[in-house]
Amino acid sequence: MLDRDHCLALDAGDPLRDFRDEFVLPEGVVYLVGNSLGALPRRTAERVRQAVEDEWGGQLVGGWNLAGWYEQPLTTGDRLAPLIGAGPGQVVVGNTTSIAVYQTVAAAARLRPDRRVIVSDVRNFPTDHYMVQGLAGLLGGYEVRDFAEGRFDDAAVVLLSEVDYRTGARHDVPAVTARVQAAGALMVWDVCHSVGAMEVDVSMADFAVGCTYKYLNAGPGAPAFLYVNPRHLAAAENVLPGWHGHAEPFAFEPGFRPAEGIRRFAVGTPHVLSFAALEAALDVWERVSMRQVRAKSVALTSLFIDLVGDALELASPLDAADRGSQVSLYHPDGYPVMRALIDRGVHGDFRAPDILRFGFAPLYTRFVDVHDAAAVLAEVLEKELWREEKYARRLAVT
Amino acid sequence: MLDRDHCLALDAGDPLRDFRDEFVLPEGVVYLVGNSLGALPRRTAERVRQAVEDEWGGQLVGGWNLAGWYEQPLTTGDRLAPLIGAGPGQVVVGNTTSIAVYQTVAAAARLRPDRRVIVSDVRNFPTDHYMVQGLAGLLGGYEVRDFAEGRFDDAAVVLLSEVDYRTGARHDVPAVTARVQAAGALMVWDVCHSVGAMEVDVSMADFAVGCTYKYLNAGPGAPAFLYVNPRHLAAAENVLPGWHGHAEPFAFEPGFRPAEGIRRFAVGTPHVLSFAALEAALDVWERVSMRQVRAKSVALTSLFIDLVGDALELASPLDAADRGSQVSLYHPDGYPVMRALIDRGVHGDFRAPDILRFGFAPLYTRFVDVHDAAAVLAEVLEKELWREEKYARRLAVT
Repeated sequence: MLDRDHCLALDAGDPLRDFRDEFVLPEGVVYLVGNSLGALPRRTAERVRQAVEDEWGGQLVGGWNLAGWYEQPLTTGDRLAPLIGAGPGQVVVGNTTSIAVYQTVAAAARLRPDRRVIVSDVRNFPTDHYMVQGLAGLLGGYEVRDFAEGRFDDAAVVLLSEVDYRTGARHDVPAVTARVQAAGALMVWDVCHSVGAMEVDVSMADFAVGCTYKYLNAGPGAPAFLYVNPRHLAAAENVLPGWHGHAEPFAFEPGFRPAEGIRRFAVGTPHVLSFAALEAALDVWERVSMRQVRAKSVALTSLFIDLVGDALELASPLDAADRGSQVSLYHPDGYPVMRALIDRGVHGDFRAPDILRFGFAPLYTRFVDVHDAAAVLAEVLEKELWREEKYARRLAVT
Repeated sequence: MLDRDHCLALDAGDPLRDFRDEFVLPEGVVYLVGNSLGALPRRTAERVRQAVEDEWGGQLVGGWNLAGWYEQPLTTGDRLAPLIGAGPGQVVVGNTTSIAVYQTVAAAARLRPDRRVIVSDVRNFPTDHYMVQGLAGLLGGYEVRDFAEGRFDDAAVVLLSEVDYRTGARHDVPAVTARVQAAGALMVWDVCHSVGAMEVDVSMADFAVGCTYKYLNAGPGAPAFLYVNPRHLAAAENVLPGWHGHAEPFAFEPGFRPAEGIRRFAVGTPHVLSFAALEAALDVWERVSMRQVRAKSVALTSLFIDLVGDALELASPLDAADRGSQVSLYHPDGYPVMRALIDRGVHGDFRAPDILRFGFAPLYTRFVDVHDAAAVLAEVLEKELWREEKYARRLAVT
């Protein structure tokens, strides 16, 4: 096993090492769940306080103009765009990933009215697949086909996640996009599990969606985002036409008239306090090289795989090029194993039925953390510490 | 004109007078826009700080269990329920009013599959009507009929706001509900403009929706709520079936299986920071008598109408029983008049083409505020102060 001093040396040479100081991280914890909920940036508390006390408290309803609340779905969208290979005016922020999936898949289906098949991945993060089922049920006459069938020639739209939430397996975005589009279907990418962990590029895609509470560190339930390729902006329809997507919301017209450009995909009143935390998170990202993030992510996950060795079967791809920023391992008693790890300060999570997940957020995860997590995991497995009765108890949310 | 001392005496005798101290209100401002964005409760800053620093910062992903984030849509729903005449397990909080309108109208339409008419009010707050148009467009084969036509015998569902956002005119909820249901249609009430200002009772209705950022004071873009009558809970379908509406979200099943009860209407991941502000707002409401709120609301709006006299034409009903907690006045140059008022510390708002709106939030609006607002309005009108060039300028959001 690579020794701890070597890992400390890797940290000393890490070009991203100073970013760790930008985050609040509890003492004595190796936090490897940034792929589920990112850590709190130090600057966020003050930005949120400002939104509550100075903006809401000080400006009251005037904050819609004075504090820029009204424009936040677009201003944060433009700031976020470079992280997914998009340009200004192509990304709008708001709502949840579930809603954004619904909007984009429906918009894509409306752009291909002659086709009645929606391709979705049954192994995708469930909410994506559920929203497609809901949409198909409401529309009627649509077939929902599993992506694994590999047939797109009669499909209106294909929805897929760049990185699989359970295994961390990564799709070849350009290749899949090209194949789908060559078959005449539109491509919607969900980048929830890749954005902030690698150089994401959705610019070939027709639509994309993602969340901001994982690697982007915008906080629990932070707003989602939605990308529309400029070639569709004039024709794409928002099937959830709330007043913030109207050309003149404050004209209070009786009929919906879509805004020019990406704003038409806004829906209701934006959740301003949650946007404040996103703004603070984006302040950090503007100083980050995504090339360095990806390089470190590959190094961290590869090191973890090396250190874990053959102790457990790998659920993630062995080749780093095919992997996101997480490492998933199979264990038939994954739940108590993870409880035992957490009890020893190593926080990963468990995904039924048998997967241990460890996420490596490159901005605040150190090489020495990887070492320590692997050492604790080895001890828990070797000594079978997870067999203790107390670890069998299930929590409501894991 | 009633004199100022009399108004001060009314304040001294007001059983709700101490609640004003619970809010942050800027010096020198009479804030009559609580019907658009409620004022900041003093306790909110600390509750939001706690959510950011102690919960997110201290518990990280563990907050979903430890801090109760996962249950917030239901716990806040149960706390809010008494404000709309509902019981536990009947209200879920989340998303925006626009999304809640879509979910409830769609669910109602699915419960009346033999009928293809959705009745909506073209004068309703636009987002409600836009969402109905969007839903009808997606479903296909549906007629959207204006409520003013008064015909419900072939309608699946009727959507209406209890209080009109422009005029403050109030519907007779029991009478309208009974008439709609007698015609075999389902009734969806939007109580955005009434909840927190009067005793709302949706218990006869089939569904209801509302926002929490107006009279409820939960902050800009605070989450909306959705009520389902218990008689529909077993059969009503959430057409936006996100993972938080699933019976076992963390089982990550490939098919959507709705949760028992109201949770099935949850959608995506809740906006936790925005929920924290709602929790603080609800702390205040739990000590408030809605009977006293309504009595004061009637007294405040009636006093304002008396004081304004015949200076401007009243857009609101003269009879208090038919009015919400706002007074709207017509003025052909309403925009510059409102700018001139705001410049003098009296904050109302303007709704095109010709309405001045003044909202009276009973928890923090005093009788002396009503006096002072009426006096400033009288001066602006008498001296035609609004004709100054600087007041003609339009802002992006008014």
